[in-house]
Amino acid sequence: MSSDALGHTLLPKRIALPVFASDALSSVAYAPDEILLTLSIAGVTSYLLSPWIGLAVAVVLLTVVASYRQTVHAYPSGGGDYEVATTNLGRNAGISVASALLVDYVMTVAVSISQAAQYLSAIVPSVNGYEAAIAVGAIVLLTLMNLRGVRESGAFFAVPVYLFMFAMGLMAVWGTVQYFTGSLTLAESAGFELVAEPGFEQGLVGIGGAMLLARAFSSGCAALTGVEAISNGVPAFKKPKSRNAATTLLLLGLISVTMIAAILFLARATGVVFAENPHEQMTDGGRALPEGYEQHPVIGQIADAVFHHTPVLFYFVTAVTGLILVLAANTAFNGFPVLGSILARDGLLPRQLHTRGDRLAFSNGIIALAAAAIALVIIFDASVTRLIQLYIVGVFISFTMSQLGMVRHWTRALRTEVDARVRSRMVRSRAVNAFGLGLTGVVLVIVLVTKFTRGAWITLVLMAILFVAMRGIAKHYDRVRAELELDDVSAARALPSRVQAVVLISRVHKPTMRAIAYARATRPSSLEAITVGVDPEDVERLRADWVDKEIPIPLTVLDSPYREITRPVLDYVKSLRSTSPRDLVVVYVPEYVVGHWWEQILHNQSALRLKSRLLFTPGVVVASVPWQLDSASDGADESRWDEPVVQWRTGGPQE
Amino acid sequence: MSSDALGHTLLPKRIALPVFASDALSSVAYAPDEILLTLSIAGVTSYLLSPWIGLAVAVVLLTVVASYRQTVHAYPSGGGDYEVATTNLGRNAGISVASALLVDYVMTVAVSISQAAQYLSAIVPSVNGYEAAIAVGAIVLLTLMNLRGVRESGAFFAVPVYLFMFAMGLMAVWGTVQYFTGSLTLAESAGFELVAEPGFEQGLVGIGGAMLLARAFSSGCAALTGVEAISNGVPAFKKPKSRNAATTLLLLGLISVTMIAAILFLARATGVVFAENPHEQMTDGGRALPEGYEQHPVIGQIADAVFHHTPVLFYFVTAVTGLILVLAANTAFNGFPVLGSILARDGLLPRQLHTRGDRLAFSNGIIALAAAAIALVIIFDASVTRLIQLYIVGVFISFTMSQLGMVRHWTRALRTEVDARVRSRMVRSRAVNAFGLGLTGVVLVIVLVTKFTRGAWITLVLMAILFVAMRGIAKHYDRVRAELELDDVSAARALPSRVQAVVLISRVHKPTMRAIAYARATRPSSLEAITVGVDPEDVERLRADWVDKEIPIPLTVLDSPYREITRPVLDYVKSLRSTSPRDLVVVYVPEYVVGHWWEQILHNQSALRLKSRLLFTPGVVVASVPWQLDSASDGADESRWDEPVVQWRTGGPQE
Repeated sequence: MSSDALGHTLLPKRIALPVFASDALSSVAYAPDEILLTLSIAGVTSYLLSPWIGLAVAVVLLTVVASYRQTVHAYPSGGGDYEVATTNLGRNAGISVASALLVDYVMTVAVSISQAAQYLSAIVPSVNGYEAAIAVGAIVLLTLMNLRGVRESGAFFAVPVYLFMFAMGLMAVWGTVQYFTGSLTLAESAGFELVAEPGFEQGLVGIGGAMLLARAFSSGCAALTGVEAISNGVPAFKKPKSRNAATTLLLLGLISVTMIAAILFLARATGVVFAENPHEQMTDGGRALPEGYEQHPVIGQIADAVFHHTPVLFYFVTAVTGLILVLAANTAFNGFPVLGSILARDGLLPRQLHTRGDRLAFSNGIIALAAAAIALVIIFDASVTRLIQLYIVGVFISFTMSQLGMVRHWTRALRTEVDARVRSRMVRSRAVNAFGLGLTGVVLVIVLVTKFTRGAWITLVLMAILFVAMRGIAKHYDRVRAELELDDVSAARALPSRVQAVVLISRVHKPTMRAIAYARATRPSSLEAITVGVDPEDVERLRADWVDKEIPIPLTVLDSPYREITRPVLDYVKSLRSTSPRDLVVVYVPEYVVGHWWEQILHNQSALRLKSRLLFTPGVVVASVPWQLDSASDGADESRWDEPVVQWRTGGPQE
Repeated sequence: MSSDALGHTLLPKRIALPVFASDALSSVAYAPDEILLTLSIAGVTSYLLSPWIGLAVAVVLLTVVASYRQTVHAYPSGGGDYEVATTNLGRNAGISVASALLVDYVMTVAVSISQAAQYLSAIVPSVNGYEAAIAVGAIVLLTLMNLRGVRESGAFFAVPVYLFMFAMGLMAVWGTVQYFTGSLTLAESAGFELVAEPGFEQGLVGIGGAMLLARAFSSGCAALTGVEAISNGVPAFKKPKSRNAATTLLLLGLISVTMIAAILFLARATGVVFAENPHEQMTDGGRALPEGYEQHPVIGQIADAVFHHTPVLFYFVTAVTGLILVLAANTAFNGFPVLGSILARDGLLPRQLHTRGDRLAFSNGIIALAAAAIALVIIFDASVTRLIQLYIVGVFISFTMSQLGMVRHWTRALRTEVDARVRSRMVRSRAVNAFGLGLTGVVLVIVLVTKFTRGAWITLVLMAILFVAMRGIAKHYDRVRAELELDDVSAARALPSRVQAVVLISRVHKPTMRAIAYARATRPSSLEAITVGVDPEDVERLRADWVDKEIPIPLTVLDSPYREITRPVLDYVKSLRSTSPRDLVVVYVPEYVVGHWWEQILHNQSALRLKSRLLFTPGVVVASVPWQLDSASDGADESRWDEPVVQWRTGGPQE
């Protein structure tokens, strides 16, 4: 997509919603599962508390939505949490948020794809037990698709997301109707009893009970992942951008909350029993579970119960849920390189990542994301429950810091704003963000307390590594910038007094002659050919050729007592420089251009090493004179022959 | 070692013997074992035939020694089998022998180190079962030593080789005396019975018996490995080189034969019983062997019996035997890169391997050898018996082809020689080589027949792969040479009509100014700076700087609708070329020189990609203008400041 073209693809709300919603909506495919699974530890009576936990999650979700609606108005540029934190809290805060976001992208891929594999196994029972392998395969597939640069249209997102909403709505309505008419079938797990773990025989009591409740709540907060996506995408909305984005965000929040509520309700109505290790934590009337029992995700179990008589709808619900999870992972593949590009622009990552058109840098980002996600999937055996522990902490770190930044933002803005109406709106916004800060801060503490030893520490370690790396890169670029600063213009404009040209040769053949001809064409003050004498016979042959072909420049043979190439040349060039330090030495190196990588191994090795060493010598320019071997011309030059567009020229007089 | 220095380290025979003998002599540490082990299959009665097999091996060994004595006289240059085959039988024969030799070096390391691990386990019983791990560790250690470039003196070889000869001699004499005085203790395995395998209940009878005998013989021929080493080392001998080398070779042969004879004799005298799988093939008076029984190498068992009352001597014999095996492996580490260098000189391997002073190429050779040997040790679990099957076929291929080459050599020489005395000597030499050819050819056939399915096919496959690769490389170099041949000297001397210089810039800083100053110093016909406009703000800043700093060359901004760097520059340079095809375009690229590899990731990526693409464009020279960052000067330029030695200058008048 060209820079100009970007302006023409602004999204109306009905397309923007699915484009940005897949990540957030897909969370409902695992958040309710995690709530029930955590509560299971205290036995089935604790399930009575699941609506309250759902309510708490909904409150947090709507608060976060309200907070981000302020962000969307204040930062229509789409910088998101990273921009908010950097602008208002300084560079280190920005780097912290960036670290959290980078880790989150990896977690999004790992969690979504792992859960998608669970849904696949609900439809295709024969893949049971191979979830990790399937997840890895899916990530590889997504990676290849994204490397190929498949550009998704709005419809690519719209169809599955609306299908998912439709499926959830259908299931909710149909299920509710059945429930009230008393015709709702029970879930496959409804008959099982939960064996409370030691310490929870009395249900949720005491500090242990409170902690477990807190854990269930923080696991449920997985529903919030992806909510911030819209704040990064404001520039893509149709005008009025901020207002449309805010509306879409609100819509997204309401849909999410409705879905969670519906799922938790139907889970109770169908009697779903869900545990981390069903065969250890459940019994079937006191006896062990049937050996082949495979626990399916909650939505799958509900769909199975609700659509008991129309299995095609069960397959439909399960399939679109899996699809939406894959789509969520795909958004991370889009978002990760974009964030990388922004971080590179700010000097926190290698600068070449900034060039968006740069396919290689883009590809490296995609591959890095995929590799990290695959590693996590393998390490945690595609267990969503274990991966979730790592996920939420990063999300809430960026939520909290972003809200803190917003509070700071409004406070600053209020310092200069005089219009009373605007001021009152700002005060209101600040209140919303302050409430959001308080709530997300509390959730962050709960998440840290309940999840630290269960895996959140891994996230913090990864974030710390990224933080240190980005700080180091920034410091390096700063140092280099200071070093390169043009302090003395007139000194920089001084020219070398003379140009001494040296052509490096080994034999007399076409590339040599070309290098000599090119060097002569530049009319240097002095010009000589040099060769390193390793084999006396070769030298003698070269000397004879030189005289025979009447080559019009002198040939200098450098002695190489240690049969080396590089050092004699380096020493000779340095000696030229030391006799006339104000001269410029241009070393012409004939170089073969080959068509195949393996040919590269057969050529140029000495030249390459020599070139890289020569560059360390001050006052030396290394000029590569290429010779294109036949193999280099077969398809190797695949460039289109567009006329380049010269924007404009500025300039002093040509000397 | 400098080229000149090489001349001063010629070896007297007493030092040359140990330097070249470790490989050949170390074979006696496994050849007798393999003979007994193969005979064991037919039960203990077949041991009666071991002296006859020893005799056959001795005959072959002495024949090969006699043959190589002719080679040493005819080819004092030390090219060895590869040179003999190439010169007399053509390039393909040479490549075949080279393939065999390369594989043999790998096998030498794998077999010697695996057997050394067996000897270690005879002294240190606690390492039993970890032989493969120990062998891998030892190869890694040898690799590191050789990468560090530890240069061995003659004494490095002399001491352990003479100690080994002394140890063997002592053991032989002492053991023989004890035998005739009736005081010789029996070996630890002497009490065990051998269970003949199905088909050999009657001992060595029929075709099966003959085949087994042939197999035992061809395994015993492992004693011949390394005999050819002296023929590669003739130039290192003191004058008269050929005669001294021939004498040393004869000495080596006699010592080898004596040792084998002694070991086979003492093995019978002490009643050693030796099998591939002792716990399956042996019984202890009809019952299974003691569970902890670990079978030790034959020399170890003999030493244990002979020095029963002086265990320190047992340790001494076993330790020096292990040491000599490690030394043999080390000679492969020296020989492999040298052969690689010779093959590279002849265009059969990448040319940079030829530069002997080139540490990197040398290191690559060492690492390749080590990696291949480690792979074999792991695949074959350090089992010498299984590795031997792969070893001998390569050795006898080179023996046979070398003898064939020698016969051809003498036949050719006889065509032109007229001196009757010289002729008669040549006829005699030819007879020796012809006999050698016949015998080694027969052995080769026996080896192929008895070992093909047992592993020799692997060697042949590896050889075939190397053969095809070397042929391909040679063909490539030939093709390139023809392509580069200077056919039209006057056309090659034509100069480009004008030089258009282009300086690639992104910002105005010190490296930019240096690049502009250098470009201006070369006084091109036209000079402009170009930049790619990706970010309008950056372009505006650059333009303001340009005017502000009064930079005296025009600045051209190239439009980049796809936010790319490389293509706009390529297209612009091509358009310059297409408007004036006879001009030379010199592109000056400012480049950062950094001190750490990770800094390289942070810089130059766009420049590097651009440079490599520009080289595909005809008529373009890419000039790198380096800027040494501070980090590049800390120790990165570690070159000594020697004055270079200019050998001489040839030359036409300077235009």
